[in-house]
Amino acid sequence: MNLTRRELGRLAAAGTMLGYAPRAIASGEERKIGYAVIGLGVISMEHFMPGVKMSQHSRITGIVSGHRDKAERIAAQYGVPSGSIYSYEDCDRMADNKDIDAVYVALPNNMHAEYTIRSAKAGKHVLCEKPMATSVADCEAMIAACRNADRKLMIAYRCHLEPTNLHAMQILREGKLGKIQAIESSFGFHAAPGQWRLSRTMAGGGPLMDVGIYSLNACRYLTGEEPVSVEAYSSVVDKDGRFAEVEENVSWTMEFPSGAVASCSTTYGAPMMGFFKVHGAMGEMYAEPAFNYDGMHLRAEIYGQPPIDELNPARDPYQFVAEADHFAECVLENREPVTPGEEGLRDMKLIAEIYRTSGIR
Amino acid sequence: MNLTRRELGRLAAAGTMLGYAPRAIASGEERKIGYAVIGLGVISMEHFMPGVKMSQHSRITGIVSGHRDKAERIAAQYGVPSGSIYSYEDCDRMADNKDIDAVYVALPNNMHAEYTIRSAKAGKHVLCEKPMATSVADCEAMIAACRNADRKLMIAYRCHLEPTNLHAMQILREGKLGKIQAIESSFGFHAAPGQWRLSRTMAGGGPLMDVGIYSLNACRYLTGEEPVSVEAYSSVVDKDGRFAEVEENVSWTMEFPSGAVASCSTTYGAPMMGFFKVHGAMGEMYAEPAFNYDGMHLRAEIYGQPPIDELNPARDPYQFVAEADHFAECVLENREPVTPGEEGLRDMKLIAEIYRTSGIR
Repeated sequence: MNLTRRELGRLAAAGTMLGYAPRAIASGEERKIGYAVIGLGVISMEHFMPGVKMSQHSRITGIVSGHRDKAERIAAQYGVPSGSIYSYEDCDRMADNKDIDAVYVALPNNMHAEYTIRSAKAGKHVLCEKPMATSVADCEAMIAACRNADRKLMIAYRCHLEPTNLHAMQILREGKLGKIQAIESSFGFHAAPGQWRLSRTMAGGGPLMDVGIYSLNACRYLTGEEPVSVEAYSSVVDKDGRFAEVEENVSWTMEFPSGAVASCSTTYGAPMMGFFKVHGAMGEMYAEPAFNYDGMHLRAEIYGQPPIDELNPARDPYQFVAEADHFAECVLENREPVTPGEEGLRDMKLIAEIYRTSGIR
Repeated sequence: MNLTRRELGRLAAAGTMLGYAPRAIASGEERKIGYAVIGLGVISMEHFMPGVKMSQHSRITGIVSGHRDKAERIAAQYGVPSGSIYSYEDCDRMADNKDIDAVYVALPNNMHAEYTIRSAKAGKHVLCEKPMATSVADCEAMIAACRNADRKLMIAYRCHLEPTNLHAMQILREGKLGKIQAIESSFGFHAAPGQWRLSRTMAGGGPLMDVGIYSLNACRYLTGEEPVSVEAYSSVVDKDGRFAEVEENVSWTMEFPSGAVASCSTTYGAPMMGFFKVHGAMGEMYAEPAFNYDGMHLRAEIYGQPPIDELNPARDPYQFVAEADHFAECVLENREPVTPGEEGLRDMKLIAEIYRTSGIR
């Protein structure tokens, strides 16, 4: 068994299959971290903010939005005073707002870097949605800005705090599946026209940036290794205008130092329930769905052991509760998040390499 | 709907979910094709020969084996006279045996070419196990030998006559799943030491040659297209001596002219139930097991249609019954088999390319 301290922390944090169990904070038991939400899209309004409402150590204390009316309405729901609503132009004024400890960046991908850097300069810790940014250079600038401002930076990779994914990691780290030989993973969906996701400028890429990153990240946390090489194909099947700027499909393979190989796919052209399958010398482990907001289902057949068939009953927004509270704890206890900026940077470097070998840039 | 005549024939032949329905042979209704089985391994004795016993147009009329005792015992079970038992050395004498119309070549891969060519020269039609051979040159020599002798050549790709796989092809050809965006497929198993499979000379390669070929072939028959490029990784994880000569793992991606992409894996180091998943614009189709001897299970979720969940109740050796009878019909009616030598050659060329790009040869 070869768990890193970070992994042990995650497993301890996961506690039960029902969800993340927040730690009792030794000092300042009553203290909650105040989050300003930057960007009022679906993930903020339907997942993160309801998650914060159910959390132990987090609360919503500010909103940054381009839509004042919408912001006022949401602010009222969460008890955020009007004075803590900012526009994109004036959000640097958050520096003067003592109720805002951290921000949650949930903007189109190309805006992650700017608002992470501005928030850090305003003295706020940053929980930023994935993908971290649209370029390696932006990721590096974000890490540097948070380091210089002595602020925490976490990339919102939900699965690193999600009990089903954590259980899968645990099974692998304990060696129950034997040496990992091969992994398959994919995640995709049918993208409707007219979204910022289909803009090369705003999204930085197609489904690989958006959901393929789950498979990429999963191969890394399942093996506990960094790929030594990648090869990829990307393509556009539908000539209906949606894919003028970004790819529709990417398939890629990776090789890890142990010799484990991975094959992955992502698409914007078809439903593709996120899954991973891990083939070890002693058995097979299969999660589907593996990356959804809820309904995670893990199955494993391992020689000489009873079969595993676990459906995680926790409902959305349990992953956002865990995310908000984990980052809050990191801020309160001065700990490193499980998925710091460096984690996002590693994926971004691999994404750049996948795009490069697929020949689309 | 864009079915080729060959595919239509396969679909018609498949008939029911229970298995291949042999055609009534117009002339010579009572005529059965006599097969000599070359090689008395598991696939011959436990699958093909029992399948022939249940067939309508086929019977066992000869045996070629290096073990005379074993051959005598099996011959007695199938009513094969002693005079129709041959050794590898004297099997060219089959030329004089009018009861033998065809041979079933079920030898280590590196012997497929020699015994196909010798059988064709002896005037026999050849049903040869997959992989067709261990090199492109051997495949070409086999095709030429059968053409020169005016004999039929079929490669024993079971899935082309298997109702679950045929139903999957039909759904795709009818466009029910919409344009195919991505396919995932894998097939592998844990290879015990001491088998000819682990000899580079005898097997020509590792799991890609043996079972990865099912995934490769499936991506071709599911899309109905030929890949325009492949990229691959192969690796050895277990340094226990089993993989001194052949690879343990291969993962590869392929791109098709339509833009569909595929990602596949195979292994000798882990259990890996054969499956394929097809992602189309209108839905998702999933077969697992997809390539076994029985128990095939097809599921599909297609927008606006009731879900498909079909477990094929047919039991082994139903695929071998279909194989024996289909080839018998081709001989009796002078038709081209669904999987002629050219089909095996195409896979062999792709296997060579996968090995080349994976850097292992």
